[in-house]
Amino acid sequence: MKILLTATSHLDPSPLSADGHEVVVFDETAPVPPEHRDAEAMILWGMGGARAFATLREMAGYMTSLRWIQTLAAGPDAILAAGLPDSVAITTGRHFHDATVAEHTLALALACARSLPRALAAQHEHRWAHELGGAKPLHDPDRLTTLIGARALIWGFGAIGQATARLLSAVGAHVRGVARSAGTRAGYKVIAVDDIDAALPTTDLLVMILPATPSTAGALDARRLALLPRRAIVVNTGRGSTVDASALNAALHEGRIAAAGLDVTDPEPLPADSPLWDAPNLILTPHGAGGRPVGAMERIVRNAGIVAASPAGEPIEGLA
Amino acid sequence: MKILLTATSHLDPSPLSADGHEVVVFDETAPVPPEHRDAEAMILWGMGGARAFATLREMAGYMTSLRWIQTLAAGPDAILAAGLPDSVAITTGRHFHDATVAEHTLALALACARSLPRALAAQHEHRWAHELGGAKPLHDPDRLTTLIGARALIWGFGAIGQATARLLSAVGAHVRGVARSAGTRAGYKVIAVDDIDAALPTTDLLVMILPATPSTAGALDARRLALLPRRAIVVNTGRGSTVDASALNAALHEGRIAAAGLDVTDPEPLPADSPLWDAPNLILTPHGAGGRPVGAMERIVRNAGIVAASPAGEPIEGLA
Repeated sequence: MKILLTATSHLDPSPLSADGHEVVVFDETAPVPPEHRDAEAMILWGMGGARAFATLREMAGYMTSLRWIQTLAAGPDAILAAGLPDSVAITTGRHFHDATVAEHTLALALACARSLPRALAAQHEHRWAHELGGAKPLHDPDRLTTLIGARALIWGFGAIGQATARLLSAVGAHVRGVARSAGTRAGYKVIAVDDIDAALPTTDLLVMILPATPSTAGALDARRLALLPRRAIVVNTGRGSTVDASALNAALHEGRIAAAGLDVTDPEPLPADSPLWDAPNLILTPHGAGGRPVGAMERIVRNAGIVAASPAGEPIEGLA
Repeated sequence: MKILLTATSHLDPSPLSADGHEVVVFDETAPVPPEHRDAEAMILWGMGGARAFATLREMAGYMTSLRWIQTLAAGPDAILAAGLPDSVAITTGRHFHDATVAEHTLALALACARSLPRALAAQHEHRWAHELGGAKPLHDPDRLTTLIGARALIWGFGAIGQATARLLSAVGAHVRGVARSAGTRAGYKVIAVDDIDAALPTTDLLVMILPATPSTAGALDARRLALLPRRAIVVNTGRGSTVDASALNAALHEGRIAAAGLDVTDPEPLPADSPLWDAPNLILTPHGAGGRPVGAMERIVRNAGIVAASPAGEPIEGLA
């Protein structure tokens, strides 16, 4: 089977070649070269801007042998919207980004709790920051300084949220999730999104891992930020649109929350004149949490085997 | 029993009072007031500089009813050296700092791997650091960018080293320890310190959690730094004297290792004219990893009960 593999996958295609597939590396943001339009399968990110999306729509017209698209992204939204025929099976990158995004979320939460931005600022001045060292209380009422015993709330409790919960538990935080309906998931107590306002006043660490949908836009708004205690840290590794940036900026400036770590903004890249860049106690990373699929090739090889063996199509893992 | 409690413990003494003990808060860096020299027990850090040590030595002369000292520090070295009579039982703060120092070690390792200092520098310039975001390989040969699958080596594999091992394992690192003798400890493979040179070339993350002794001075020297791969990260949350600072500075300046995180230096505070402040890809925190005992009061209450009940002395937990 001829498989087109996006040039930015950073995946080693040799397991596919070893299984007898022909792997052709291609640029998913440009039209597919005519000699490769007979490919039966494509592995691509399927996200990015308007140009990438237009390319995807055009593909539907000329990729007439196509039977399978494997996305590397966790969400297949853009590919589902591209108008491909039903005969093309689409499998998602669900779980590919659990470990990396959870790790980055932990890195931002710990950097905020351990005041690394303040330590780096003091370092820049060649100043030993006595206020950050020495004997201190385990639980500072004014500022979350450790995740040990911290009350964490993870808003968005899918696969990535649950992976994050496991890491936060490992460092000693008490974790609850927020999802559409209440219950227990993966061993964690989950509260319904309609009840979140009651949980915010007892939240030390609020982790936002929500997808961008009309219903999540501005989910963390000024009113909800005001419900958090002053010692709270907010981390967003979901989508920028889910946090009201100007309300967050005001909360940081006025010291109404202790710190924040953002890997996502709206829009991206964040414009140079955004006031967010200079918000105090903020760490901003440029959407670098994921972008490197973990365990992807193993699943892709399995799926490729199934697709190649059954032209009529049968269930494959991670179907969108 | 009258118990003197150091003013910087940040511990709530009410469980001791509830057990009928008289708790007097005192300043361990000054002579004990005459009216409290009849105390039978003291809870103090027992570290710090020459003045604190001199105070400790003088105490041996006038604290004639003293039967027990509980240190909050993990190591009782200064108290053992103070020349107190053998009738004074000394119990250490072993395990009090496992969780906090392990957390800080993880925070520094993740901040280095996730390039937070570079992200903060770009943020300062209002620049979206494209080089740190988007699609990238999981394992960059030139720079450790994730702890997932990272080969970690923890030099100093006591209680804090083992607690650190558990956290690094939780984020997906492969962990080995280094101790005086080889074997398996807490489920981890431990190599002998004499064999460390052979392990350094396959180490992505080197964590130093060694005590300051004559034999550990300069343990990580220029020769051993040169054995690490270029992608390696070094974190020191043990004692500053165990790392040759000028060799580390040179390795960072010449890009022979990727990054470093130091919570300890030699001396402390680090002088303002030290070249280490400006070493590239270095995060320096001011000895802030521990300093907040976890689970201390529970153990102190147990020990106080034993000491109060048996004037002749019987085994108590954490005896030095």
